[in-house]
Amino acid sequence: MDGFTYPVHPWCITENSFDKATVKKNESVFSLGNGYLGLRGSYEEGFQDKHLGVRGTHLNAFYETEKIRYGEIAYAFAEESQTMLNVTDARRICVTVEGETFHMDGSDCTDFERALDMRRGVLTRSLVWNTRSGKRLHMLFITLVSFDHPHAAAIRLTITPLDFEGKVEVTSQIDGDVKNLTAENDPRVGSGLQGRTLSQPVFGTIENGGVSTQNTQHTQLCVACAMTHAAPKEESIKATDWQMTVSWALDVQMGKPISIDKFMAYEWGSTKNTDALARDASKAAQAARAAGFDVLLAGQENTLARYWQDAGIELEGDDALLQGLRFNLFHLLQSAGHDGRSNICAKGLTGEGYEGHYFWDTETYVLPMFLFIQPEKAKGLLMYRYGILDDARERAREMGHPQGALFPWRTIGGKECSAYYPAGTAQYHINADIAFAIKRYVQATEDMDFLCGYGAEILVETARLWADLGFYNPNKGGKFCINGVTGPDEYNAVVNNNCYTNLMAAENLAFAAWSLEWMRANRPQAERDLREKLNLRAGEEVAWKRAAENIYIPYDEASGLYLQDDAFLDRLPWPLETIPKENFPLLLHYHPLVIYRHQVCKQADMVLALFLLRDRFTLEEKRRCFEFYERLTTHDSSLSMATFSIIAAEIGEADKAYSYFRGTARMDLDDTHNNTKDGLHMANMAGTWMDVTSGFAGMYANEKGLSFKPTLPKALKRYAFTVA
Amino acid sequence: MDGFTYPVHPWCITENSFDKATVKKNESVFSLGNGYLGLRGSYEEGFQDKHLGVRGTHLNAFYETEKIRYGEIAYAFAEESQTMLNVTDARRICVTVEGETFHMDGSDCTDFERALDMRRGVLTRSLVWNTRSGKRLHMLFITLVSFDHPHAAAIRLTITPLDFEGKVEVTSQIDGDVKNLTAENDPRVGSGLQGRTLSQPVFGTIENGGVSTQNTQHTQLCVACAMTHAAPKEESIKATDWQMTVSWALDVQMGKPISIDKFMAYEWGSTKNTDALARDASKAAQAARAAGFDVLLAGQENTLARYWQDAGIELEGDDALLQGLRFNLFHLLQSAGHDGRSNICAKGLTGEGYEGHYFWDTETYVLPMFLFIQPEKAKGLLMYRYGILDDARERAREMGHPQGALFPWRTIGGKECSAYYPAGTAQYHINADIAFAIKRYVQATEDMDFLCGYGAEILVETARLWADLGFYNPNKGGKFCINGVTGPDEYNAVVNNNCYTNLMAAENLAFAAWSLEWMRANRPQAERDLREKLNLRAGEEVAWKRAAENIYIPYDEASGLYLQDDAFLDRLPWPLETIPKENFPLLLHYHPLVIYRHQVCKQADMVLALFLLRDRFTLEEKRRCFEFYERLTTHDSSLSMATFSIIAAEIGEADKAYSYFRGTARMDLDDTHNNTKDGLHMANMAGTWMDVTSGFAGMYANEKGLSFKPTLPKALKRYAFTVA
Repeated sequence: MDGFTYPVHPWCITENSFDKATVKKNESVFSLGNGYLGLRGSYEEGFQDKHLGVRGTHLNAFYETEKIRYGEIAYAFAEESQTMLNVTDARRICVTVEGETFHMDGSDCTDFERALDMRRGVLTRSLVWNTRSGKRLHMLFITLVSFDHPHAAAIRLTITPLDFEGKVEVTSQIDGDVKNLTAENDPRVGSGLQGRTLSQPVFGTIENGGVSTQNTQHTQLCVACAMTHAAPKEESIKATDWQMTVSWALDVQMGKPISIDKFMAYEWGSTKNTDALARDASKAAQAARAAGFDVLLAGQENTLARYWQDAGIELEGDDALLQGLRFNLFHLLQSAGHDGRSNICAKGLTGEGYEGHYFWDTETYVLPMFLFIQPEKAKGLLMYRYGILDDARERAREMGHPQGALFPWRTIGGKECSAYYPAGTAQYHINADIAFAIKRYVQATEDMDFLCGYGAEILVETARLWADLGFYNPNKGGKFCINGVTGPDEYNAVVNNNCYTNLMAAENLAFAAWSLEWMRANRPQAERDLREKLNLRAGEEVAWKRAAENIYIPYDEASGLYLQDDAFLDRLPWPLETIPKENFPLLLHYHPLVIYRHQVCKQADMVLALFLLRDRFTLEEKRRCFEFYERLTTHDSSLSMATFSIIAAEIGEADKAYSYFRGTARMDLDDTHNNTKDGLHMANMAGTWMDVTSGFAGMYANEKGLSFKPTLPKALKRYAFTVA
Repeated sequence: MDGFTYPVHPWCITENSFDKATVKKNESVFSLGNGYLGLRGSYEEGFQDKHLGVRGTHLNAFYETEKIRYGEIAYAFAEESQTMLNVTDARRICVTVEGETFHMDGSDCTDFERALDMRRGVLTRSLVWNTRSGKRLHMLFITLVSFDHPHAAAIRLTITPLDFEGKVEVTSQIDGDVKNLTAENDPRVGSGLQGRTLSQPVFGTIENGGVSTQNTQHTQLCVACAMTHAAPKEESIKATDWQMTVSWALDVQMGKPISIDKFMAYEWGSTKNTDALARDASKAAQAARAAGFDVLLAGQENTLARYWQDAGIELEGDDALLQGLRFNLFHLLQSAGHDGRSNICAKGLTGEGYEGHYFWDTETYVLPMFLFIQPEKAKGLLMYRYGILDDARERAREMGHPQGALFPWRTIGGKECSAYYPAGTAQYHINADIAFAIKRYVQATEDMDFLCGYGAEILVETARLWADLGFYNPNKGGKFCINGVTGPDEYNAVVNNNCYTNLMAAENLAFAAWSLEWMRANRPQAERDLREKLNLRAGEEVAWKRAAENIYIPYDEASGLYLQDDAFLDRLPWPLETIPKENFPLLLHYHPLVIYRHQVCKQADMVLALFLLRDRFTLEEKRRCFEFYERLTTHDSSLSMATFSIIAAEIGEADKAYSYFRGTARMDLDDTHNNTKDGLHMANMAGTWMDVTSGFAGMYANEKGLSFKPTLPKALKRYAFTVA
């Protein structure tokens, strides 16, 4: 196994033993999802010790709010948290023989194997249960979250008595007794609501199963959950306060497999539509049952065959990294929302970390990958931003900007949820990141309908925000300056002229102006309509262009370095080698003031600008910057190393690029950040795809099209990928 | 009345009508206290409408803690709030005639007058009650919190039937059903614990009265409260769950006054000593009774006669300001703790604002006044800081400093309670403010025993903190720089090289070194003991002197201006005249980021440095700075105007100085900050004394002694004051 957590295999993640210590991490790794519905890799039957795992079922964008309590509040602090809920659990299936119920943490179990198959899109678990009464059963669970039936999941349980015949009892449940479980004292996990939050379920029966509805309290959302089965005639269907249980007493024969297929489906929406939601969930479950488990299985393979074909990713010379890379791409597919009202949570649908919030991770890391693999998904992600544009306008007003829109740093439904503004609301760059993603999308797809119908409106409103925020500072040679924001690097907060922000704001301003010009020339009516809708004043475009052209760029002549912000060189260097290893990540061991005082970076910031705006810097500038910031960067953010890998490749340090790539490709598989239990790191996962494409292959897209500048690290023989 | 809230009178604050709208404000204004015990100006009988006032009884330094909840927490954020509690209410006295109980908000009352007499140290209330049954009674309440018996207060109620004879029922209570009442959505008020926090009282009877004990939950403190009476034989003494009530049924005769004297006393301490505390409170109440109301009354007059003699403050030409000035001095006397374990709350003992916390207000504003009037009080305040030095050491470690002590920005018991660090913990200048107060005290009193026994240890530990925090920055000409702190001006937070902080840190460093030198020369054994106790290393003193001499001072050559911090000129000016009046104070109407981005000041910062370090600047520099910062200062902090007045006087703008003085002298009397209801502004009150002494008279104390440079504003004929 070469020291890796799971056996190296091109398409599978497999574990062959059960260890209580890794339960939570493995729940994240073995997650299943389809962008709408996510199931953590919890065992169907649950544990005897209820505190062992973080069982989780998540619906993308389904959340509850809670008033944020501050020790000391100030004006326009985010008012409410939004937390992706752990919803109704329809996965429960238990097997009982002679009064003993099987549990991974209590039963004698041999020949255990659990495998996530990334070509088949299923999770299988196979084991032999040796009961206390001396009987042996083989059990096989095959679980999938359907790509073809996006509201449905299915489980096939096959039991084979190895040395007896007689009765085996099986129960299958909808369990409404669920709550969010993760919220330790780690600010990165989040601190939203705790405890049970869904109302007691209302149950109804449907053919071969049942349906439940449960409501949130504050957001007034309802989740409907249905289950039905393809199985021998059941013994009973019973509902208690919180559970609905279907039971079978199966007569089993030695050596003869017997199967139960469970189909479950979720719908969510306003509590006003509870009945319709229950009906739709029931229909979706019945439709999955009607299709049948084998057809669903085949659908998974088809979807994945197309996905792997679109991605075409290959890597020769390091199978462990190839495994990691595919694992990453697989989970990105599983997590990305595509209905316009959902997006990609920082941890996908794989855990409660970051409360299920959407960040800039989407536009800056995940979207570029989809853009080149399955561009329609990229569009869906941008449509989500268009959907929350009004919230962003409102937020801009709250933040004192009479014009424009300010996208929230973290949100689900559209409102700012960051309870620590220096590393939250202050990260205005998210506006420019979204604008940049629109630019990339439009350049790559030439989808000018999107630009005219949606993109341009976002571009105008974000450009207006920068125009209001920045000013021509006589103290900086009359250049256009942006003060009091936080760049990507959260270890230098609320600074003046963050170089990344200024550069990206200039892109935003310029591209907004370009878009209006293009529309005027090519879609004059659309342009007029937009001007009218947004009450665009004469001179706004001119002002944007002027600001973009006169943007202030902090630069140190003496060293030839672009400076992360105005005061960066004024801070005290903090040689990383003097910091005890156990004090990383710094944010968990030093007060923010200590961190902010030092020349230390959590993540790529200036180095990210080098990557995104490749044409703007000479190779020599890139080399200088890379070397300077590399020495100061802790990579305490999982978003960091992938970017360093790309620039390392560009400046000719292929082996260093490869080394960073190694640090990212298996980050979650090997749990190198010690928090995979809270969910997988989506942005880093997408970053590893960029390491191969933008890094090793030197792929770069701009208005002139696509270019490549490939390099090959010594450790690799070959790599390949496909772009759409 | 000349537009003033109360009739102008040299020694009294009087009101002649009752208005529900001003109840809370008047409760603050008519507060009584003696530094140990404070009673808000609530009416003995309470209101029918329980929500009308914020009834309050406070014991200096008696507090409860609560875990601070953060929307998003980070390392070393303050963990617990500390809130000065509203304690057992022993003030209650009710008068009932024929079943009707008198209340200010329900009864027909004429000839009402309430007066706070600042020479006699009592509050009197006189009124005629016209009962619904048509009877008329004159009632007179005289209330005092004793200076001679610091644990005791007393009330004399005199009832005179004007037109009837018969029965009048009087009840007197200890009421344990109390809780903190103020915590609106104003960050300045505080957001600590809410609701009832003292345990149900345990009652006992004592001669002519009773005693109660109640405990806090978290701090495990007990408050004992006793009452006794000099009165006709009571009818009954009864205790319910929360109240103990003494009742009288008095036979009254027309025109014949009848009096009841109530004596109450408080003790507090550990819950381990509950019995002793109850005994001591009872003894203290009995002792007050034994002395008798008239003796207590005489004691008040004596104490105040001495105080006014020590202060000797006079002002001819503006009686309203004289009234304000005396009001301020009176309340400072009433609020200042003097037992070494208590200090001066930002609002004294007059309200729940700021949760009863101690700030730099003490050392920078209040202490200088006492130093020149009653220096022993100044010493008591410094001893409080010595008492929390270990907490400050611990806090320094939490904040990443391997050496030294960091005093908390706000606290009662010694631990940092600031839940918003940019305008809290980041205000490291409090260390230097305390050191500066020690310097002033030692220079003024030559109390070298204090220096050797206590002061030097604080000086060493604060100097060590600066030595660790600052560094020689090659980017700033190798000067000693201090990054990432907030100066006095909370509208520019977490800045580099706050000029005030740097200057004051240099004073701290230099005076620490001087003190050790002096001790070496004059008290060698004490010096050796201290070195040993603090493990003072060779070279530390040298390093402090070097840092002090090489301190970096942000200065703009072009304009000849001292800059508030490195980036001050980089911020966007925010002309105050463009801000709508209703948007002041800015902190209640703009997100901190908006404020921090602008060239705008909440309060004197650089201007305060001009005052404290008078010798360090030329008059021309002061004039330039004053004019520059004056244009940018909102005075949203009540600490601001007094300082501007002083510098205005110094630069020859006597009338402007007078104008600022007018803004400060009656700030609470006229409620110009609209928050007098939460308590009186102690620092501003002391600031008005400085306006006369340091401002108009140009008094300045340094190592060479005291000097004066008097000026006379046109509006004044004469002013005078005494220094100890």
